[in-house]
Order: sequence, then C-alpha cells, then structure tokens
Amino acid sequence: MYGNNDPLVIFTPSGKRGNFPIGTPILTAARQLGVDLDSVCGGRGICSRCQITPSYGDFSKHGITVEPNAISGWNSVEERYKSKRGMIDGRRLGCQATVQGNAVIDVPPESQVHKQVVRKRAEARDILINPSTRLFYVEVEEPDMHDPSGDLERLISTLRAEWDLSKLQADFSVLSKIQSVLRKGEWKVTCAIHMGDETIGPRIINIWAGYYDGSIFGMAVDLGSTTIAAHLCDLQSGKVVGSSGSMNPQIRFGEDLMSRVSYSMMNAGGDVEMTNAVREGINVLFAEVADEAGISPSLIMDAVFVCNPVMHHLFLGIDPFELGQAPFALATSDAVSTQSSNLGLIHMHPAARVYLLPCIAGHVGADAAAVALSESPNTSEDLVLVVDVGTNAEILLGNKHKVLACSSPTGPAFEGAQISSGQRAAPGAIERVEINPITKDPRFRVIGSDIWSDEDGFEKSILSSGITGICGSGIIEMVAEMRVAGIVDSPGLIGNPEQSGTDRCFLDGRTYSYLVYDGSVSGGPKITVTNRDIREIQMAKAALYSGARLLMDKFEVDNVDRIVLAGAFGAHISPKHAMILGMIPDCNIEKVTSAGNAAGTGARIALLNRSARKDIEVTVKEIHKIETAIEPRFQEHFVNASAIPNSVEKFPILETIVTLPDVNFNTGGSGEGSGRRRRRRN
Amino acid sequence: MYGNNDPLVIFTPSGKRGNFPIGTPILTAARQLGVDLDSVCGGRGICSRCQITPSYGDFSKHGITVEPNAISGWNSVEERYKSKRGMIDGRRLGCQATVQGNAVIDVPPESQVHKQVVRKRAEARDILINPSTRLFYVEVEEPDMHDPSGDLERLISTLRAEWDLSKLQADFSVLSKIQSVLRKGEWKVTCAIHMGDETIGPRIINIWAGYYDGSIFGMAVDLGSTTIAAHLCDLQSGKVVGSSGSMNPQIRFGEDLMSRVSYSMMNAGGDVEMTNAVREGINVLFAEVADEAGISPSLIMDAVFVCNPVMHHLFLGIDPFELGQAPFALATSDAVSTQSSNLGLIHMHPAARVYLLPCIAGHVGADAAAVALSESPNTSEDLVLVVDVGTNAEILLGNKHKVLACSSPTGPAFEGAQISSGQRAAPGAIERVEINPITKDPRFRVIGSDIWSDEDGFEKSILSSGITGICGSGIIEMVAEMRVAGIVDSPGLIGNPEQSGTDRCFLDGRTYSYLVYDGSVSGGPKITVTNRDIREIQMAKAALYSGARLLMDKFEVDNVDRIVLAGAFGAHISPKHAMILGMIPDCNIEKVTSAGNAAGTGARIALLNRSARKDIEVTVKEIHKIETAIEPRFQEHFVNASAIPNSVEKFPILETIVTLPDVNFNTGGSGEGSGRRRRRRN
Repeated sequence: MYGNNDPLVIFTPSGKRGNFPIGTPILTAARQLGVDLDSVCGGRGICSRCQITPSYGDFSKHGITVEPNAISGWNSVEERYKSKRGMIDGRRLGCQATVQGNAVIDVPPESQVHKQVVRKRAEARDILINPSTRLFYVEVEEPDMHDPSGDLERLISTLRAEWDLSKLQADFSVLSKIQSVLRKGEWKVTCAIHMGDETIGPRIINIWAGYYDGSIFGMAVDLGSTTIAAHLCDLQSGKVVGSSGSMNPQIRFGEDLMSRVSYSMMNAGGDVEMTNAVREGINVLFAEVADEAGISPSLIMDAVFVCNPVMHHLFLGIDPFELGQAPFALATSDAVSTQSSNLGLIHMHPAARVYLLPCIAGHVGADAAAVALSESPNTSEDLVLVVDVGTNAEILLGNKHKVLACSSPTGPAFEGAQISSGQRAAPGAIERVEINPITKDPRFRVIGSDIWSDEDGFEKSILSSGITGICGSGIIEMVAEMRVAGIVDSPGLIGNPEQSGTDRCFLDGRTYSYLVYDGSVSGGPKITVTNRDIREIQMAKAALYSGARLLMDKFEVDNVDRIVLAGAFGAHISPKHAMILGMIPDCNIEKVTSAGNAAGTGARIALLNRSARKDIEVTVKEIHKIETAIEPRFQEHFVNASAIPNSVEKFPILETIVTLPDVNFNTGGSGEGSGRRRRRRN
Repeated sequence: MYGNNDPLVIFTPSGKRGNFPIGTPILTAARQLGVDLDSVCGGRGICSRCQITPSYGDFSKHGITVEPNAISGWNSVEERYKSKRGMIDGRRLGCQATVQGNAVIDVPPESQVHKQVVRKRAEARDILINPSTRLFYVEVEEPDMHDPSGDLERLISTLRAEWDLSKLQADFSVLSKIQSVLRKGEWKVTCAIHMGDETIGPRIINIWAGYYDGSIFGMAVDLGSTTIAAHLCDLQSGKVVGSSGSMNPQIRFGEDLMSRVSYSMMNAGGDVEMTNAVREGINVLFAEVADEAGISPSLIMDAVFVCNPVMHHLFLGIDPFELGQAPFALATSDAVSTQSSNLGLIHMHPAARVYLLPCIAGHVGADAAAVALSESPNTSEDLVLVVDVGTNAEILLGNKHKVLACSSPTGPAFEGAQISSGQRAAPGAIERVEINPITKDPRFRVIGSDIWSDEDGFEKSILSSGITGICGSGIIEMVAEMRVAGIVDSPGLIGNPEQSGTDRCFLDGRTYSYLVYDGSVSGGPKITVTNRDIREIQMAKAALYSGARLLMDKFEVDNVDRIVLAGAFGAHISPKHAMILGMIPDCNIEKVTSAGNAAGTGARIALLNRSARKDIEVTVKEIHKIETAIEPRFQEHFVNASAIPNSVEKFPILETIVTLPDVNFNTGGSGEGSGRRRRRRN
C-alpha cells in the first residue's frame, strides 16, 4: 500500500513529508514522520490536543495542489468536541481527519508537545516545553481469570505498547488505588508519568479514572538565604499560574549563610532545626501559591529548587558544617532527584519528584547553575560576565570555549541590610536617586510611585506607603550620585558641610552623614547616609568587583564584551551607577543588561524542559571553578577595589561623560579611606 | 610480560588456569580468570575474605610440579591478621601472596562469594549465596577545592571504578551522614550496596567509617494467614542466625482469608486496620528475632516475604476486595521490590529494600511461587505434585515441560482449628495415633515427648505440658486410624458402641463421638473426636484432593510420579494416613516426601540468591493457572471426594496392605454420609 502512488502529506512548519495510504489518520501520519503533534488520549478523539489546520490550494513550491477533498469530512467526534469545548474554524482533530489526497497540514504551536515559552529579553532563548511529568490516557484490558495478571501489569503493558515507555514502573502509592480507579473509569485511566532520567526509568506517579481533563503543575523555587520565591507553572502550557514569595524562616538562626553554619556548629541539632524551618516555610509557601491559583496541592507533580550550597545542604537535611571551612567540601555536588516525601514536602503530590540543580562548587551553588542555565554563557559567542548579586554574588565569566565561576562574599548590603536607613525592596523604599551637583539636593523615587520627589503629585502618590528607607538599588545610586556630586571622595569619606558644599552633611559621631529626607516633622523617618553605610557599600562592591576581576585574570582578559546583571537586585540596579561605583568592570554600558531573577528563570527552564536538566548537568561539570577564599589575587583585588573611581578617564565607554570630582576629604593622617583604586592588572 | 613463559596458575576446584607474571597477587590472578574468590576490601589485606590454600608437589595430571617457593613468603600483613584473628595453617591471604612459579591454588568454600548453603533433603538443590545486598570497602580521594566535587560523587566514582558498579546511586538517607562517616573513617568506608535488579540500579544503602568487620543480615518471612515465621540470615554466610514465629494479629479480624476480605468489605477502613495490624505484628517479630540474635535491627538490610494473595495485598496496603469475587483480579502480580519505609517496617534498616515474590494468580500467591522456587517442579524430570497444605492449599503439578497451579480452599481444619479438641501444633498436642483394630483403643504420642502413651515413662515425659488436644497431623492420623479400625465408615459416620465394637463411642447429640483420652479425673481435658470433626476433615481433604485431581485432569494424567508435601503441616503429616484418608492421589508411598516449610525455604532462597528472584519471576509467568472456583470439574471432584476410601483395592501401592472394613453405619435414610467415593475420571 505504501509508496509513491499514495497521497503526499506535507506538515508545516516542520516541512516533514511522506506518502500515506488513503484513510490514514493525520495523527498517525505525523507520528510516523516524527512530527511533533501532541496527544494524550492516543488518538481516541478525547483529548483534542492533536488539532491541526489543513491548507488547500496550489502549493507549487512543493509541486502539489491540495484539492478541497484532500482531507476526510468533518465527523461527529469533531462536531461533539467543537460544540462542547469550541474549536477555531478551520481546525480539525488530527486523530479524526484522514488522508484522502495530497495534503498540506499545519501544526499550530499549541498542538505541539514541545511548545516554546517565549522569553521577553532579546538575548534570551525561548524555553522549550518538554516537562518531566506528562499525562497519558489509555484503555486497559479487563482481567481474565483464565489468564490472570495484575491490574498494574496490564496497565503498564498497555502504556508500554501504546506510548513506547520502556522500563516503566509505578510508584508504590499507585498500588493502593489502582483497582478502584480502573473500575471507576471502566478500565480507562489517565496516568501522570514522570519520564525518568539517567538513573531511574519512567514512573507512574498518579492515576485518574477516565480521561483527566485538567492540568498538572510544577513548582520552580528559588530558595534564597533571605527569601524563598515559588512559581507555579502549568506543565503542559508552560505558563506561570501563580507566584509567591516569603522570608526564609531560617533567618532567625542568622542573617547570612556563615552565621547559619555557625549556628549549626554551636548548637547540637542546629542543622535539623534549620532544615525543619526551611521545609516548613516551603510547605506554607506551596500551600499559599496553590490556594491562590485555586488548585489542589496534590496536582503539583514536579518541583525544581535552586539555592546556594548552604541552603542546598540544609534543605536536603545535610549539616552544612563542611561548607564553613576549607576545602568547602559538598556532601553531594551532582543534581539531586528525589521524592517529595524525602524532603518533607507535604503540599505537593506525595509521589512527585523534586529536582535540585547541581552545585558548581562549595561556594557556587545550584543557584549559580540555574543562572548558567538561563543565561548560557557556555553558548555565547562573545565574552560575557554574568553577575548574580545577592548576599553572596555568584559570578560566571565565559564564552562557548570556556566558562569560569566563582562566588564572592558581598554581604547583605546590596539587599539593604546593614545600611542605617536600608530596607528591603518594598513600597516606600527609595529606589532611584539623582543629586543635583550644584545644589547637592537629592530627588528620588520610591517603590510604588512613578513620580519623582520634586514633581507634582509625589506626596499624594506615596500616601499609602510613605517614605520608609532606601532599598539596595537605591543605596547604589545614592552612593554613586554622592560621589558624582562631590559629597563623597574617592576613598569613601563624606565631606563636612564646607568640603561637600551642603548643610545636608552633618557631623554624626566621628564622621559625617548626608541627610536625604527628613520626615520627622510628620512623624516619619529621618533618612540619612552615614559614612558607615558608604563603607558597607564599598566592601560589598569591592567583593563583587574582585570576584569578577579574578575571573578576568584567570581568563587572561582585561575587558569583557558584555555584562549581565542577575538576581532580584540585579534587575533593578542602574548599570551607570554600578559602573560609577566600580561594582562591575568597565564595559560598553549598552552591553550591560539585566536578566532579572535568572536563577528563578533557570529553575523554571529545568522544570519545563527535562533535557535542559541533562544539559546543565553536563555544563556544570565543564565549568572551571575558582575558589576566591584561597586566591591571593582576590585579596589583592579586594584591597585595591574599595575606593570609588577617581576620575572621568576611567569611563571612556559610559554613554554620557560623568565627571567625578578628584577630591580627598581625609584631613587627618588616619588609615581611613587610604585604599587607592588600582583596577588594572599589574 | 604476559605469555607462556610466565608461571602457570591453576585454581581448584574451578580448574581455571592462566599464566601470570611473577609478583602477581593471587587475588588479581583469580579476578582476571573469573575465579570466584571473595574480597570486601579490594585486596588491601583488611578483610581476609580472600583466603586460599596453595598446594605443593607433583601435579602430573596438570603437567606441572609446584615448588615450595611457588608462592611468595608469609608477610607481615598475614602475620598480623593471623595473630589477631587466627587463620587455618596452610592458608594464605590471596591479596598478599604473589605468584613466584607454577602454582596450584585451592579456593576453600568459605572464600567463595557464591558459596553453597547445603540443603538437607536429597532431592533439594543447594542454595547458592548471591545476596542482593553486599559489602564493599573503598578508600576515597579527599576533597580538593581546586577541583571541587561532592563527597558522594567521589565515593561513587571510586566504587564504580574499583567494583565495576555502573549506574550506582545512593539512597537519600546516605546524604545526611556521608560527610561525618568519611571523615571519621579518614576517607576509608565500607558500603552496603543493594545490587539492584531489572528496574533499579545498584544503590548504597548504608556506610560505615573504616572497614566494617561485622555481618549484614536479611529476613526471610513466611507471612501466613494464621502465623508469621521469620528467619534471620547472615547475608554473607547464608546461615540462619535467628528464627521466630508469631500469630498473625489479623486473626482478630477473621480466622480465614475470606472472613478478612469480608471484614474489609463490611467496615470502612477495615483494610487499613488489617494492614496496620499485620505490619505491627511483623515489626514486633523483627525486633524479637534481632534481639534474640543479639544484633541491631538496623543491620537487617534486606527482607523477602512470601504470602498468599490476600495477605500480599493487605501487607502492601491494598484493599483485598477484588480478591473476594470473580475474576479475582490482583492489583499487582509481578514481584514487588520496594523500600522498607513504604511498608512501615521500622525494625530494619530504613533504606533496606523488601522483596515480595510474584503471585501466580488471584488465588495462588507468592507463597506458591516460593514453593515453586524451593521445589522447582519446572526442572523435574518426573511428574511431581507439590501440595502446600495450609488454610488454603496451593497445588503445583508439573515437570520440566509444563507446570500447572491452583489453590484449593481447605479451610483451617488441617491446622487443628474448627476441630472440637483441635489445637495448634504445640507441646501437649497429640500428633501421632495408632488404634488397635481389635481393642479399638488408641495409643498416641504428644508433641514434646518421644514416648508413646502406652509405654513406660510416658506420664513423666509429659508432666510439663500435659495432654491438651489434637494438632492437625494428629487429627489426620486419628481419622485414618478410626477408619482402619472400623470405628468410622466410608461415608464418614462414627458407629455406635455396637457398630464400632467399643464403648469409647458414645452418643453426643445426634451423632456419636469417640473418646481418645479422658484427663478429667486429674483436671485435664476430655479429648474426643466428634462426627462433626470427621465432617470437617472430610471437607478439607476433599478440597485438597479435588484440586490435585483437577490439575491431573488438565495434565491428562491419572497418576503422578511423586508427591511433595509442603507447609509446616505437610512436614508432620504421615503419608500413609494421608493416602488412607484420600487427601492425596494414589502414588508409590516411597515417592511421597515432605519438603517442610517449602514456602519459607523459597523465601530464604530468594533472600540469599538474587538471581533466583529473576528465575522465579520468569517461572511464574510460565506456570499455567487453573482457577478452581469456576471449574465445574472441581465441584464434581469435591462432591465425590468427601467419602473415605472404601476398600483395600484402592491402595495397591501402599507399602503395607491396609484393610479398610466395608462398613456403613447410616441406619436411617438421611442424606448424611451418602457421598460415594469415585476417584477415577469418568
């Protein structure tokens, strides 16, 4: 029957083509050609995922003309589906429509298993949907007491045969429900199957009686030291259907990672306490997100976590003790795939699997791996520096030939912590600042309002929040603007009123502070920048810069082609101000972009695309790890990087020329501010 | 270096030989030749499992002479081991002794990985030791912060390289302890590794710091409806180091299987109650056996369960509802391998795996599969009938060409239940009976004494137990002897004193009973056999016979070559009396043997030999299943088999001629006892 006398069927957009006998269902033709056409019900006219659009007319470039009767007529199954659920005119069900002549068949994106989730940034690749957990509908043979076999064995052999799922297994929890579900569904069932990985085969994790018409979900979690952010995704469409964040409850054991490691060292069972705390926090968050999305937590069938090594260990129930001292040995560095119940996650399906991305090194965790997955420096033509700014900064430098990674202890200053008027990024926080170089007065914008403080309507626009403090990105801009306005000198001292030319500078202990905003008359806060704040920012930015600079040394380059700022903080940072401060190496400012929460995006990619998991596992092994803690050059860079750049000559590539006054307010002989900036390699 | 100029090394008993350069350790030579020489430490002189015995002198049949210096001299490692632990004279450590000339090396049985456990019965094959969980000692590289990798990944890669364990994984529970164990052992660890099966790869389930010098254990469990028997085995030597049995706590939900199925049907959550009860019972039993053997339950690293389908389902947490009605569908029929924690087994290692043999059919369970594994009818040259007698009888009939299986509902009479003076087999129970055909007086033996009741010293020998009842094998002999003595007629009626010729027969309600023993003068029991007892035994033996006869019909034979009686009861049954009663088909009585607890033996084989698991999984799929419940011929056989054989002509092959009086005590016209015995096929 098959041969060139049979009608030619061409699929678009793939271009795949073949001859098929009259009467062949389009879905069958697609499967034989390897065309990506979705189906959950296996061609039974139930799931409607195999919708296609036949084209008609002259396709001279393909050498065929498609006659109006090239495809079989509209049938009752399609009519019933369309009347009940609706279907775009011109669409057909691929399992119902059959080949009657030469045909051209378009597979719309939503009918592809491997759909794309389009990412907004120009330089970011789309996410291919290829989830680890998928739905399969089958009709199982009834038991025959003359040829006895278990219900599970008949289900598995049907799934194997119809869906080519070799080595398929069932989770233990399926055993207790399989008999009632099969009988309730009259031997028709939908299975959620985790497709497995290198080490475990595919696995049935849930079964529904009959055709399950709903969605299944996955959670992408960015488990930070300070905050936990969870994104609930529809595993079929890839859409984010709910998001929420919360504070990491471990904060009560210590603000930063090292204080948590210390807590574990100083308190017997401290690690267990912290493990329980973070798991409990995740449970609460999952329940919240599911509730807000209006779904049952038991429909969460997959989860991906990204986190730094200490959070990684504490979440897995491993004492992070070894991460607190050289050689910073990880208990496990490879990706971890385990069952949700092993992690005490009670607000997802009990048989769901949980995936943690691999860690790169003892100081460079699964969060950095997730950034690498999202930003893929390993496929970049040009040399890219990716900086994920958080309590620790993870830094990646590389191109398609080589990628280096390190971590740098920036401390919490960039998150608004340890800053006198600092606060987390929340309504009321100053996030944008400009200081008039003549009057030395600031204007600013606060989160929650688009109006600058010197514009009409500002007061009204911030009525509900007030002005409460300065967030991380605000303090960056503030210090940079203070430097540009000549209020701060290169070593980092705030001038007295005379030196700085403004009464906003006032003696505050042994050093001067700068008054940003005085809300005290109306009972609000008095927001100032102290010299200690400047020091904190200097330390943080020096750490960040030194890490990047160390990688550049190792790469033997003095310049990078582009810089990607990642992290929630990175998303809001002003590249110009970051460069003025000397946080990041010099670079064409047009080539400095923000990737937003790249770690979170990496988690989402790994959640939605199981082959991306394999990719990042391979990539991580190829990344060269640099341990800053033992690199003498890192210390050297750090000492040299604490100053704030001295002159405009340092910024030939900034889009606008910024004049940095060459001032030095240090009138005494103390060591304070004596660090000189020497960025270039010796 | 390698070639015929190198010394020839010959291993016995394998006969494997090869040329090896001078200086090659014997262990290395053995590994290269595939000689089965054990080692846990990988040749480091720690474990001493590679002991070998060099032979010296003239081996003309091999064409070589072994000089006294064929093997390197005794070294300090061997001296230290021998002085500390002792070693048989003439033995050497295979990893220390090296080839110096032509050599003949004997590997003693205890140095083989795949040792044999010798079974006592002539027809039974030895058990090959090849456990699912084994110990491996390795020395792991220390972490290097310049080339960071997880401790687990370094452990796994060392194990993979040294022991050829591909796809090796670690149980999740290993993560939390790996760092402290590696450091405590100074990077030397012993791992217990479950070797995996078809669907899962090898898996580290426990780790010890340094070389672990102890044993690991497995539990073989025969999970019966009435009793649970557990045997604790050393997984390296195969020895049984502890055994215990207990009542199945489910008994409170119903004596027999169907009453438990009914309990589940009539009571919401009844199945969960029963699941919890049996798991709790197993937990108590495991703790007991471990305690008696003086080992920590956490050293129990493997367990194998055999049980009937209803117990199988209830143990796994599956409602046995479907097993109570046609088509008797099993939730799962294949072997189940799962983690102990899934089954709530708290008194074994939490990462241990538990294996349940496959079920043959809805009425023929993993216990029958275990009997098939132990007795292997599928490899038998002659036609063998294997009968496992319990509350249900599992019956196998076959040879190497074909095996049939069925189950027959014998009820609990054979276990002494539902018999007026019946009791479980325990001290004080009458187990052997002879009735004098002239005097009609019985003599008997009770469990706990070797002296017959009419012999000197009997009274004294039973002082501690007394005479308390009749056990299952006792009641079989009793009824058979009553029939031979003319006290019971062929339809099953007990005669009155005149008919039976003894005053021991007395009117007891509407029928007669036979007094066996009257201990009432000394406050003991009055032990009698009632006509109802006879009826119960008739029902039970008819069910058993009918099942066997049905399989013979299906096999199209009228005779079997041999009969194996299995089960705790089968072990004590008298073949002669069983044949008199008509429990089993006629067969040369010399060919009727007892296999003891064959199901328990099957469990032990599967525990000790992982390839036997694969074997029985294949065998079970090849067994032809016969469902007695829907076979009209079964009912027909059952009706015809209730009578007790009528005359000596029926037993041409009994070793001694037994005369069965042709009597009929039914003086009325009622249907009672009207069933006639018609054994032959129509």
